[in-house]
Amino acid sequence: MAETNRQIVLDRLPQGDKLAPEHFRLIETVCPTAGTGEVLLRTRYISLDAANRAWMQGATYRSALESGQVMAGGALAEVAVSNVPHLKVGDTVFGDTGWQDYAVVPGKRLSKLPAMEPITHLLSIYGVAGLTAYFGLLECGNPQAGETVVVSAAAGSVGSIAGQIAKIKGCKVVGIAGGAEKGRWLVEELGFDVALDYKGGGLRQQMKEAVPEGIDVYFDNTGGEIFETCLFAMKNFGRIACCGAVSQYDGAAPPHGPRGIPGLIVTKRLTLRGFVVMDFESQRDAALIELQGWVASGQLKVQEDIIEGLENTPAALIGLLNGENRGKRMVKVD
Amino acid sequence: MAETNRQIVLDRLPQGDKLAPEHFRLIETVCPTAGTGEVLLRTRYISLDAANRAWMQGATYRSALESGQVMAGGALAEVAVSNVPHLKVGDTVFGDTGWQDYAVVPGKRLSKLPAMEPITHLLSIYGVAGLTAYFGLLECGNPQAGETVVVSAAAGSVGSIAGQIAKIKGCKVVGIAGGAEKGRWLVEELGFDVALDYKGGGLRQQMKEAVPEGIDVYFDNTGGEIFETCLFAMKNFGRIACCGAVSQYDGAAPPHGPRGIPGLIVTKRLTLRGFVVMDFESQRDAALIELQGWVASGQLKVQEDIIEGLENTPAALIGLLNGENRGKRMVKVD
Repeated sequence: MAETNRQIVLDRLPQGDKLAPEHFRLIETVCPTAGTGEVLLRTRYISLDAANRAWMQGATYRSALESGQVMAGGALAEVAVSNVPHLKVGDTVFGDTGWQDYAVVPGKRLSKLPAMEPITHLLSIYGVAGLTAYFGLLECGNPQAGETVVVSAAAGSVGSIAGQIAKIKGCKVVGIAGGAEKGRWLVEELGFDVALDYKGGGLRQQMKEAVPEGIDVYFDNTGGEIFETCLFAMKNFGRIACCGAVSQYDGAAPPHGPRGIPGLIVTKRLTLRGFVVMDFESQRDAALIELQGWVASGQLKVQEDIIEGLENTPAALIGLLNGENRGKRMVKVD
Repeated sequence: MAETNRQIVLDRLPQGDKLAPEHFRLIETVCPTAGTGEVLLRTRYISLDAANRAWMQGATYRSALESGQVMAGGALAEVAVSNVPHLKVGDTVFGDTGWQDYAVVPGKRLSKLPAMEPITHLLSIYGVAGLTAYFGLLECGNPQAGETVVVSAAAGSVGSIAGQIAKIKGCKVVGIAGGAEKGRWLVEELGFDVALDYKGGGLRQQMKEAVPEGIDVYFDNTGGEIFETCLFAMKNFGRIACCGAVSQYDGAAPPHGPRGIPGLIVTKRLTLRGFVVMDFESQRDAALIELQGWVASGQLKVQEDIIEGLENTPAALIGLLNGENRGKRMVKVD
């Protein structure tokens, strides 16, 4: 099999500048060959996540990315050649393929995913996005019925699910998103109680009016000024689930953090907890069953934002960092 | 009883400036009279705490202080007149007397303390300081034997006890304090493994050398740059017990918080938890029994720093904010 393998290379790491198309380069190489214990994967849907940009800033829960390497990223992929007994040609897996048509991956890192229609749900609601929302909200936020939950980046892949789960749990749910149109969608389609527009100015005042009672649980996807605004609006004994900091990824590292830390943590007796979805691997199956039930009953709406063509992956990530997506963004490779 | 009552009044609230003697004024009034359900207390030992200064900045877990009022503060006091059945003349209580010779306090807020020698232990190890150290370290920090615990303001009333409890629990304990002399005391007298001198410069480098393995539990009394240094040195899944922020109380409010928040909370999966000792009221008796056992066995050394004379209370608080005390500072009123 000497097929062409298109690869998107991280040509140059951004150095405090915003991510741009010129940081990437599309090259064509020869399709690699799977060795002993390895599997050749054909990439089908590449997951786009704000975390992709964070990996360019330095080591996180994975090593920092380097210039010249194929851009890293997870994808739904089909097994094209298998040298391991537990996978056969045609199986669907989620793998750390990077942005390319084909990737060779150690078989032990892969497990077969169930058949599903649409298959893209394996990347959105039943993938990292859905599980991140589920565990972050329920394990770190621990919302109780009647409490007030605020979610930032609420129209994004994780936020849109976290907010809906909070509604299912009987909470008052406030979403923060950019623009009136996203806000209408959150309220009218997803059932959020209120949407705040961080691009509309006066977020503190909007918050005071929408949440005069204070916030019990804040699900933070953004960090930065939105985080600070919510911190000041927290109730005593409130919980902040720290999921990500998309406001901090694309550009120079901020010289300082939000005000009120640690003073407000003390006086309000807050708990802040950071998490990464892999930490909850042992609870994954139970979570998937619960998510499936909510989707089946119509309580949880799945929103996907599918871009066509591997060559459009850089633009799709840049757009995501600018907040242009609604729900889970992914790239259909061919 | 028309005795004179000396009172130290908060003459002028500091407005972003450092606390100074001219913020206070000593006046003489007539001793007040206890009404129905009230108790007249004679103040014996006034507790000095960094929190006294924080109360001047705005509402915390108590209302903000105002210019012209008697300076607030808790004290060990003797019942001089009792109009409630559960207290009699001569009983010792801990009350919110303020800085004055005599105070009238509702009887329902007071309970009789046990006889003890020295009585000052009721303000230090068996008072707010000891219980704050105990609950903050054990409930919020949850240190395990073999883990590395870092304590800031380690020579202070709370820090010196928190560090010793961490040693009792089998941890490696690193104290941060100002000056080589305090450091020697922490290591040689209290059994800390290492002391870092935040006034000596290069705290990050000192931390790297002392804690190459990273911090499991950070007991934060300071906030600010020391907090930031520890945040960057935390291990994955580390815990930060947020007890206070003495670096932030005396002067203008800082324009920004520590860097790395919330990014490092996410990638390191940290938990930060703020607390106030009153939150653990229901566990108080059990904690006191455990503390008494450690003191009796000599595992826990009690250090007190007693200043004589009500008139010296302002200077004693100013000195505490400048870090001149070692262990629990209090003022013996007469």
